[in-house]
Amino acid sequence: MEKPIKIAVDAMGGDNSPSKIIKGIKIHYQKSNNTFYNIFGDKKIIKPLISQSKIPNTCYEITHTENFIKDTDSPLSAAKKGKDTSMWLSIESLKNQNSDAIISAGNTGALFVIAKLNLKMIEKIDKPALSALWPNKNGMNIVLDLGANIECNEKNLVDFSLMGSALHKSLFENEDSKVALLNIGSEELKGNNIIKNTYQILNENKNSLYEFKGYIEGNQIMDGNVNVIVTDGFTGNIALKTAEGTANFITSELKNALNSTLLGKLSAILNIKNLKKFKNKLDPRLYNGAILLGLDKPVIKSHGSTDEIGFANSLRVCEKIIKSNLIDKIKKNII
Amino acid sequence: MEKPIKIAVDAMGGDNSPSKIIKGIKIHYQKSNNTFYNIFGDKKIIKPLISQSKIPNTCYEITHTENFIKDTDSPLSAAKKGKDTSMWLSIESLKNQNSDAIISAGNTGALFVIAKLNLKMIEKIDKPALSALWPNKNGMNIVLDLGANIECNEKNLVDFSLMGSALHKSLFENEDSKVALLNIGSEELKGNNIIKNTYQILNENKNSLYEFKGYIEGNQIMDGNVNVIVTDGFTGNIALKTAEGTANFITSELKNALNSTLLGKLSAILNIKNLKKFKNKLDPRLYNGAILLGLDKPVIKSHGSTDEIGFANSLRVCEKIIKSNLIDKIKKNII
Repeated sequence: MEKPIKIAVDAMGGDNSPSKIIKGIKIHYQKSNNTFYNIFGDKKIIKPLISQSKIPNTCYEITHTENFIKDTDSPLSAAKKGKDTSMWLSIESLKNQNSDAIISAGNTGALFVIAKLNLKMIEKIDKPALSALWPNKNGMNIVLDLGANIECNEKNLVDFSLMGSALHKSLFENEDSKVALLNIGSEELKGNNIIKNTYQILNENKNSLYEFKGYIEGNQIMDGNVNVIVTDGFTGNIALKTAEGTANFITSELKNALNSTLLGKLSAILNIKNLKKFKNKLDPRLYNGAILLGLDKPVIKSHGSTDEIGFANSLRVCEKIIKSNLIDKIKKNII
Repeated sequence: MEKPIKIAVDAMGGDNSPSKIIKGIKIHYQKSNNTFYNIFGDKKIIKPLISQSKIPNTCYEITHTENFIKDTDSPLSAAKKGKDTSMWLSIESLKNQNSDAIISAGNTGALFVIAKLNLKMIEKIDKPALSALWPNKNGMNIVLDLGANIECNEKNLVDFSLMGSALHKSLFENEDSKVALLNIGSEELKGNNIIKNTYQILNENKNSLYEFKGYIEGNQIMDGNVNVIVTDGFTGNIALKTAEGTANFITSELKNALNSTLLGKLSAILNIKNLKKFKNKLDPRLYNGAILLGLDKPVIKSHGSTDEIGFANSLRVCEKIIKSNLIDKIKKNII
C-alpha cells in the first residue's frame, strides 16, 4: 500500500464545528482509504464524535487544545491568541512536515495571516492569492484572486495565471487549462494599464501549462470557453459575491413563483426530480472551499457555513492537491 | 394642455433599427399623450414605418440623414464621421434646446464621446458616470458607474452618490434614496484608501437627498436594503455583467432541467403561468437603458439588443427624467 497522505484538520472553525468536521471526515474516509487525519481541537468533544463514526484509530490522531479562533477575531488578535489555537497548531503541523496540507472552516483572515507567519512563500512568487471553484457550462472554473490582494501588479497577475492553471490541472487532470483576464467591455475603455501590460506579457510568453485566451467580460465567466479566470482581489471578490447574490435572488424568486398557486405547487411536486437535478448542479457544496496559492504548502479554506458534505468535498480537494503535487507543479513552471 | 416634452431619438442605432425604434415610439406614444419626438435618421425608411403606426404628424418631426454610426466604429472614428450622423444630430438638438433629452440604442462609446463634445458638464462635477437600473427584492437599484471611468477618486464617488440619488428620486419619487458603497468582505482588507476616504466624507456630510448606509458587498446588491449603489466604472461594469451572466446561466440550466423528461415538460406546461410571472419579474426589458449623468442635459442609452418594448421603457425613463427636472435636482444639491 502506498504511503498515506496526511491532512491537518482544524476541527474548531465554522458553524457546527467540530460536529460537521468529524462527519465530513467520515464521508471523506469512506471514499478514500489512504488518508491520515491530523485533527486539532478539543479532544473531550472530538473523541466521542469520532468514536461513533467508526473510523479506525490508526487513521487519525487528535492533538488536544481548548484554545481556538473565533469568526469575530481580527487577524491580528487571532495571531496574538498564541500558538496553541487549533488553527495555529494545524498550520504548524505543515511547517514541521507532519502534514501535507491544512484545511480549516474558520476565520479566513486569520488563516491567511497565520499561514503567512508560519509558511514560506514559493520562490519568485510575491503575493499569495485566494482561489476558488466556480461552475461554468462545461464544468468548473478556477477564479483568483478573490480578496487576498486589493491591488495587483503585472507580475502578480502573471503569477496568478500560472498558479491557477496548476491548480486547475491538479483538480481536473484531463482538461486543458485556458486562462483569461477579467476585463470590462467597451473597446475604447478596455482596462487599466496593469491589465493591458499583463495581456502583452501573457500573450508573448507561451507556456506549457496553459493557453492564454485573452480578455473575458463578467457575463462570459460561466460560458465555459475558459477555465482559469485571473483578476485582482478587489474585482474578484465583488464578482464572486455578486454572482452568489444573483443566484440567491433568482432561486428565491423562482421558489416564490412556483409556490404562489395551488396548481403551481402541485406541478412543482410533479417536477421535483428535475428541480432537484437543477439544484444539485448549482449546489454550492460541490465547489466549496477556497485555496490559498503561493505558499510552499497547500492551505485550504472550507466555507464556514457549509455542512459535512461540503466539508468532505473540500477534503477531496486537499487530497487531489496533495496527490497531484500542486506545489511542485507551480515551482517547476514559475518564471 | 401643458407644454409637451421633447425627446431627441437617434433612430439608426442598435439591432433592428429603425423598425424597433419606431415601434417603441408607438408603444410609448399610446401611454403618453404629451411627448414630441424629434427623430433623426433615414427618412425614406422611417416615414413609411411611422405612417403605419398612426402617430399623428403633429407629434413628431423627422430630420433626414443617411449617415449613421455603426456598433463597430471606435468612438474616435464615430466622432470623425461628422456632424450629420443621426447620433450627432440628435445630441445637437439638445445643445440647441430643441429637445429636452436624447435617447440612442447605438454605440455606447460613441454616444459618450459625442455627448461630451457637444454638451457642458454640470458645474462642479468632474466626471460623468454611466448609471443603470438593477432589480432588488423590494424594487430597483440605481448602480453607477458602469464603465465610464475606470479610475475614480473620492470626489467622483461622492458626486456619483448625489447624482445616483437624484436619478433614483426622479424615477421613484415616493421612495427614500439610500446610498451604499460597493466594497469587499473581510474586515481587515476592507477596501482601498479611496473607498475608505469616501466613506468618511459621506458619513460626515449629511445630505437632504439621500441617507448614507455604509458599505455593501456584492452578494447584498439585490437585498433591497439600499437602492443607490456607488462604485468605480471598472468594478461596476464587472459586477453588472457578472450578474447578467449568472442570471443567464441559471435560467438556461433551469430550462434544461424542466425539459429533460416528459413528466418535467408536462408539469412545466401546467406551471407556465407561474414561470412566466417569474420570467416577467426578471425581464431585462423592464430595466432597459443606462443614463449618462453629469452632463447638463439628459443622455439615455437603450440596450442595443433590446426590442420595441425595452425601447419604449427607456422612452418612459426619458419622460420621467425630464418631468422631474433631474438636472436641476443635481445642480441644487451639488457641493
